[in-house]
Amino acid sequence: MAAIAFLECSRCHHHVSAETPQTLCPLCAGSLYVRYDMDKLRHTAKREDIAARASASSASLGMWRYSSVLPDATPVTLGEGWTPMLNSKRYPGLYIKEEGANPTGTFKARGLSLAVTMAKHYGLQHLAVPSAGNAAGALAAYAAAAGIAAHLFMPQDVPLANYLEGIVYGADVTMVDGLISDCARMVAENIKAQRDANTPAHQVWFDISTLKEPFRVEGKKTMGYELVEQLGWQYPDAVFYPTGGGVGLIGMWKAFDEMEQLGWIEKGSKRPKMYALQASGCAPVAKAFEENKPASEFFQNAATFAAGLRVPKPYGDAIILDIVRQSGGKALAFTDEQILTSILDWAKHEGIFLSPEGAAATAAYDALLATGELKPTDKVVLFNTGAGLKYTDMTAEAMHLKRPNEKKATLPKSMPVGGIITPQ
Amino acid sequence: MAAIAFLECSRCHHHVSAETPQTLCPLCAGSLYVRYDMDKLRHTAKREDIAARASASSASLGMWRYSSVLPDATPVTLGEGWTPMLNSKRYPGLYIKEEGANPTGTFKARGLSLAVTMAKHYGLQHLAVPSAGNAAGALAAYAAAAGIAAHLFMPQDVPLANYLEGIVYGADVTMVDGLISDCARMVAENIKAQRDANTPAHQVWFDISTLKEPFRVEGKKTMGYELVEQLGWQYPDAVFYPTGGGVGLIGMWKAFDEMEQLGWIEKGSKRPKMYALQASGCAPVAKAFEENKPASEFFQNAATFAAGLRVPKPYGDAIILDIVRQSGGKALAFTDEQILTSILDWAKHEGIFLSPEGAAATAAYDALLATGELKPTDKVVLFNTGAGLKYTDMTAEAMHLKRPNEKKATLPKSMPVGGIITPQ
Repeated sequence: MAAIAFLECSRCHHHVSAETPQTLCPLCAGSLYVRYDMDKLRHTAKREDIAARASASSASLGMWRYSSVLPDATPVTLGEGWTPMLNSKRYPGLYIKEEGANPTGTFKARGLSLAVTMAKHYGLQHLAVPSAGNAAGALAAYAAAAGIAAHLFMPQDVPLANYLEGIVYGADVTMVDGLISDCARMVAENIKAQRDANTPAHQVWFDISTLKEPFRVEGKKTMGYELVEQLGWQYPDAVFYPTGGGVGLIGMWKAFDEMEQLGWIEKGSKRPKMYALQASGCAPVAKAFEENKPASEFFQNAATFAAGLRVPKPYGDAIILDIVRQSGGKALAFTDEQILTSILDWAKHEGIFLSPEGAAATAAYDALLATGELKPTDKVVLFNTGAGLKYTDMTAEAMHLKRPNEKKATLPKSMPVGGIITPQ
Repeated sequence: MAAIAFLECSRCHHHVSAETPQTLCPLCAGSLYVRYDMDKLRHTAKREDIAARASASSASLGMWRYSSVLPDATPVTLGEGWTPMLNSKRYPGLYIKEEGANPTGTFKARGLSLAVTMAKHYGLQHLAVPSAGNAAGALAAYAAAAGIAAHLFMPQDVPLANYLEGIVYGADVTMVDGLISDCARMVAENIKAQRDANTPAHQVWFDISTLKEPFRVEGKKTMGYELVEQLGWQYPDAVFYPTGGGVGLIGMWKAFDEMEQLGWIEKGSKRPKMYALQASGCAPVAKAFEENKPASEFFQNAATFAAGLRVPKPYGDAIILDIVRQSGGKALAFTDEQILTSILDWAKHEGIFLSPEGAAATAAYDALLATGELKPTDKVVLFNTGAGLKYTDMTAEAMHLKRPNEKKATLPKSMPVGGIITPQ
């Protein structure tokens, strides 16, 4: 484990101690990054030790194989990270990072595992989160594992899985008639009300919104370490990342910074082009990219069946856009029709059932192949951020799929879809 | 990879060559087991090489870390196996093997990965399966990955996830008004009709029902290797296994045989007690165990929300009962109420969202703790055979959970369950 040196503001570079729980920069409200003593880590955190340590451990370490560059605290773990990297059968250079394998079925497990680990370390008893759905489910699970109370605020039309997760994990669930932005406001209002009422400190909720505390992005950085290690400690040509809050992209860029500082990746290596993919029905980052703006505007009437992409204005928008531009990548958006088409295409031809968010990325891949901007041999790591199986209700609805429901149909012996056979 | 020496009948021990696709023993219709040249493997398949090989490989090998004891063929893989083993927070000796992390969300991925690997090796073009749900979904995925046609027969009331899997993966889906037993009969009837009609050989469906071909149980044996390796190459005191078809239990016992023959586990080590857990609404094996019978009878009116346990008479029943008795274990059954209670208990207290099948096993664990037959320090490996998230519709229904659906409710600011807040 690595001792945290300090927390650094991503905007004004002010340093804050990590001895007590922190949210945003006290000077400018910028997001805080975890910083380590890199001089020391260059000696103690060796790339060769990663695989050796993982193999010496009988159980799977998951993302904690990177504990030498993660904060020093006892992990609250459910087996998150070290997800499969699946080589496409059709496109030789394309690799799918299958985040659906995580606990709770999405990559949110990584950030919440670390954030709850630190919350337990600090002795926090109440955590609150606004979420498009999956972060809420992940917080509920890790908080239950840690014995901490979770307060979830999510849109009332999130996929059934997210609602059910909140209930079964025993969280305090508030369903909001609005979007994640409304949920965020309500969390902040609740906490302010608690403070105004002089609620005892240990009962005040801690706001664990991503980028409003330092550890969710820190957990997500492990995706950057993993994709590089799984390619043999090399960068791909491009990374395709479905972008709702986009914090995974920010975490990966931080991982790239660290790996270069530690000498885990050769100096001068060309970083991958970072592609941030969105749904046309909620594309604030793609719009700002197209309009050459440094930050996004609140996207009105956000609507898409890719629930995880329903983030009208991500808190880290300026950081995301900067990374995308620096890297020579793009921010692009695709329609629900293109997304659904891609889900069906990948399931049928590759046996991979993408989430709608993951399919925004594969739709982008197809589009860039078609224009020639990408070649099938280019090395691309594309994130399927969640299991297709977590969205059965949303996907079935998008497909207008009706289950056969007549119990005693008299139909021919075999029908491809939709018939029910009554055995003789 | 290991060359298959021959296939051996589990019942009459007749040997059959593995050079062409085989189903059942041609002499007595017993299930066939894959056999290797153990004298040779004792020299070439070293326990120490497992972890070394896994760590040398940049990507995760999953269950293929055991390739030295698996058939010699190019894997059709989606990242199956090497699932997390999670230590319970409440019971120090209890470990949950989280099969929900697999592709398609259940342990079926293991057997179907190997069966489809061999089907591709043999050049088979059509595979058919009767299934309680999850095997059909797994076949659809692996067949899609392999470019082989899949013909699925499942009960019309399987969880939505299984129906959707069949459709999105592009399989030929038949929904049957009946149970897996009716589905099995229909697969056999279809194949017989094809043969009677002199259908060209490559168009005849191959019946990939578990235990009616040798490779699904062979893939499942990797659960036995894994649980032992993850405990540091030792047996636990007991294994708890949710039993529908029960083939995982048979596979694990085969793995124990092989590990002892190979010297991977100390001679004379006491094998775990094998507990086969069922739902009261479909408990043929538990009933036969209780009545001291060597095989089960068809369980009438089978009904349980644990869809994977709806197997009225498993093909391997005699083998399962023999293993359970030999090992000093038991076959037990629990009600849907006990199962649902256990799902909620484990999610709330441990952050693990069990499938209904997995919760039959945890309900058993609780019952045996209560009687004192088990101590919390006994080393027990309990299989959660599928992700709770794959059963959202079944579990929500069992809980009578209604989503809040009023868009403009005027409710107090925060409600634990069921209210919708309209932001001001």
